Amino acid sequence: MSQYTITVIKNEQPKPKPASDQLMFGKYFTDHMFIQDYSEERGWHNPRIIPYEPISLDPAAMIFHYGQTVFEGLKAYKTKEGQIQLFRPDKNMERLNRSNDRMCIPAIDEEFAIDAIKHLVHIDHEWVPDTPGTSLYIRPFIISTEPYLGVSPSSTYQFIVILSPVGSYYKEGINPVKIAVENDYVRAVKGGTGEAKTAGNYASSLKAQVIGEQEGYAQVLWLDGVEKKYIEEVGSMNVFFKINGEVITPMLNGSILNGVTRNSVIELLNYWNIPVVERRITMQELFDSYQKGELEEAFGSGTAAVISPIGELNWDDQKMIINQGKTGEISRKLYDTLTGIQYGTEEDPFNWIIKVK
Amino acid sequence: MSQYTITVIKNEQPKPKPASDQLMFGKYFTDHMFIQDYSEERGWHNPRIIPYEPISLDPAAMIFHYGQTVFEGLKAYKTKEGQIQLFRPDKNMERLNRSNDRMCIPAIDEEFAIDAIKHLVHIDHEWVPDTPGTSLYIRPFIISTEPYLGVSPSSTYQFIVILSPVGSYYKEGINPVKIAVENDYVRAVKGGTGEAKTAGNYASSLKAQVIGEQEGYAQVLWLDGVEKKYIEEVGSMNVFFKINGEVITPMLNGSILNGVTRNSVIELLNYWNIPVVERRITMQELFDSYQKGELEEAFGSGTAAVISPIGELNWDDQKMIINQGKTGEISRKLYDTLTGIQYGTEEDPFNWIIKVK
Ligand SMILES: Cc1ncc(COP(=O)(O)O)c(C=O)c1O
Ligand SMILES: Cc1ncc(COP(=O)(O)O)c(C=O)c1O
Repeated sequence: MSQYTITVIKNEQPKPKPASDQLMFGKYFTDHMFIQDYSEERGWHNPRIIPYEPISLDPAAMIFHYGQTVFEGLKAYKTKEGQIQLFRPDKNMERLNRSNDRMCIPAIDEEFAIDAIKHLVHIDHEWVPDTPGTSLYIRPFIISTEPYLGVSPSSTYQFIVILSPVGSYYKEGINPVKIAVENDYVRAVKGGTGEAKTAGNYASSLKAQVIGEQEGYAQVLWLDGVEKKYIEEVGSMNVFFKINGEVITPMLNGSILNGVTRNSVIELLNYWNIPVVERRITMQELFDSYQKGELEEAFGSGTAAVISPIGELNWDDQKMIINQGKTGEISRKLYDTLTGIQYGTEEDPFNWIIKVK
Repeated sequence: MSQYTITVIKNEQPKPKPASDQLMFGKYFTDHMFIQDYSEERGWHNPRIIPYEPISLDPAAMIFHYGQTVFEGLKAYKTKEGQIQLFRPDKNMERLNRSNDRMCIPAIDEEFAIDAIKHLVHIDHEWVPDTPGTSLYIRPFIISTEPYLGVSPSSTYQFIVILSPVGSYYKEGINPVKIAVENDYVRAVKGGTGEAKTAGNYASSLKAQVIGEQEGYAQVLWLDGVEKKYIEEVGSMNVFFKINGEVITPMLNGSILNGVTRNSVIELLNYWNIPVVERRITMQELFDSYQKGELEEAFGSGTAAVISPIGELNWDDQKMIINQGKTGEISRKLYDTLTGIQYGTEEDPFNWIIKVK
């Protein structure tokens, strides 16, 4: 139980809300935001919900120079009955604190942070869209704010939560994507920050992503930074392959993000008695399975798309068309079940749902 | 030649200046700053020098989430005659554009940026301290400002320059430091962003730096991220070793910063006909040379300290005391020559100095 009390200042000039069918990802923001400050003397203090407004920082604030920062991403969903609910926010707050640890940022109170998110979402509940597939994206993040150019951890921080109504990822139903295996650029390496959800990992991924898009790919598949052999993850998704009846996903090794959706997929597959293993897997092994006709499905998992079937995977000049470019059976079942739980149309056997008020 | 005109708004409330002997690194900032905006339609536009003031950004601005940003660090020095001068600013602006390229940030006009820096330094010329060893640190940086949570390059940026009067790095004369070889954490890897001066590299270095400091070390020595064998660089310095009369520095390999001081050291050594090579060197080779009594000097090179002799290097539990923990002859000569050129007491055979007005 948290001893903090959140001060609320209501926005007296609410914005017009975009139409549900015009929503995109991360373009529109709601009327309020949550902020909490950190100082060495007071720890985390002064939690408040205030009108959504610009952040004002000294130009020497460390976030602008040394990128000491972490973030999270989760969603609030509206059920047919109008109930607003979160999917496993505890997992996101646990991961936020693991990221904090790696980035030398003081830990937050996870339980309090969930309360703060619920409170904020409740205040902006009219912003949670209700057309199928839409949701309210929640972006908690922590920035280092001390105005100091020495390379060392900041002595002050702000923990901020903003909300963005987002459209359906699949406007015309779940749809397989084309992915390119990245051979030149590296996203993360053992001993680096790959397992933390921190800005630098995404900054370093931009170049490969831009080149991939120019070549017609939705995202790139990252290989390990040491041997460039082992499959790691996709741009903003973990990755799974069904080979010969068994589902395989790269094991957590310190450079891969520990996805909440990844974990949920593994739990569901276990629940359904579908064999699933976490282990190292090389591109060569994947390609060999493909050539033997044993690669049955491939898909990414992440908060944004939930499940994203991979219809085509390009490795150098070798094009792999998976499941004839169509959505596989397990991909579909996982997508339907996860979204069903999120939107309250399916049972929630794992108690993954946290209701907002 | 640049077609831009810089608008100047003078600060009518200049701050009191800290005493020269109380200066530290990067704690105090001058009365003015330079800003220029970028948009896709207008390119880089609206260059202006305005009073030093907070930056106001949408909380969804990309810099807070995906760390798309680059920076530089150089100094202005005051000569005995009161002349203010810069050291190789062209090298810093070239590097800024190389960093921009890696980070998908639009290139700046290098010549114009040098003009802008000179203009800004001139306006704040009273802030350039003149006690021996002090200088005005110049921090150009570019931040991504678009309020959008998609992972892609920003469509808007700000190029900002701030100035900070800094104290002498060596209060009691040039002084060897203790450095620990880092075996667990990795700063950068081939294919990553190590060669770019970008926030994420520094964020990822904090944890090892904090642990190193707790154990009594000034900085850590990074090894390559692939084999953890090859010497890369120190926290914010490149590194040199004198072995058997020859000076060796790790070659640029894509994960090491291409230091301006490093380049200047190499040019000076060549000029003096002291053998210097850029090549891969393993910790094992260094240690073996040490044991054979052939490791004569070790030093770091960087804008902040210029030359920082390494008196002790710790590799696992093997402690190497270099040159009896004292400043070596070449370290001293490089330090004296470089600072001599910077402060105008030595000849400048390479035309490294650019005078401000
Ligand atoms: C790099 C990366 N991998 C994987 C994921 C999937 O994680 P989650 O399922 O928690 O959304 C994400 C993002 O959200 C990500 O950014
Ligand atoms: C990682 C790193 N290496 C090396 C250097 C030295 O470069 P320069 O000599 O240009 O200052 C710096 C810094 O300034 C740095 O940040």
